[in-house]
Amino acid sequence: MKKLIAIYRAPGDAEAFLTHYREKHLPLASKIPGLIRAEVTQIERTILGEAGNFLLAEMYFADADSFKAAMKSPENAATAADLANFAEGLVTVMTGEVIEG
Amino acid sequence: MKKLIAIYRAPGDAEAFLTHYREKHLPLASKIPGLIRAEVTQIERTILGEAGNFLLAEMYFADADSFKAAMKSPENAATAADLANFAEGLVTVMTGEVIEG
Repeated sequence: MKKLIAIYRAPGDAEAFLTHYREKHLPLASKIPGLIRAEVTQIERTILGEAGNFLLAEMYFADADSFKAAMKSPENAATAADLANFAEGLVTVMTGEVIEG
Repeated sequence: MKKLIAIYRAPGDAEAFLTHYREKHLPLASKIPGLIRAEVTQIERTILGEAGNFLLAEMYFADADSFKAAMKSPENAATAADLANFAEGLVTVMTGEVIEG
């Protein structure tokens, strides 16, 4: 299983950020071909290490081929372009492989 | 759904880190009472933002009460104490609430 992982640091206006995220960004992401599931976690507390993270978003894809096709899709480009509308300078985007679980 | 999230930055010796993680750390975490599922993702590439993350580990709990009990358990204390054996200075540990997915 492949994942696209986005970690957002705390925005200036959390409510405006979440509204944009839910009403604009997530619907765009939901259209990415091959997307199996999107899981979004709001960070509540930092127990150890550097604080300041706000949201963790994970998009699941079945395998490397469907992930590659998804990343090249216009729907993914539209989702990525939307980051500039609410998360400029706040987001780290990574790709990963689920190795356990 | 509550989650305990750990993000590990790249260790000096990735193979030794993963061996310890799989053979010692994950078995300790698996004993935490109330744990529903543990998902571990190896980071492959950073597309946007700061590079250097290596592993994302997520421990799922049903609700706030079971999460609270888990965090207070001796099994969680043993798991947390093991971090010093392989991830000193590399890990950020956070709590979160799944809000979508």
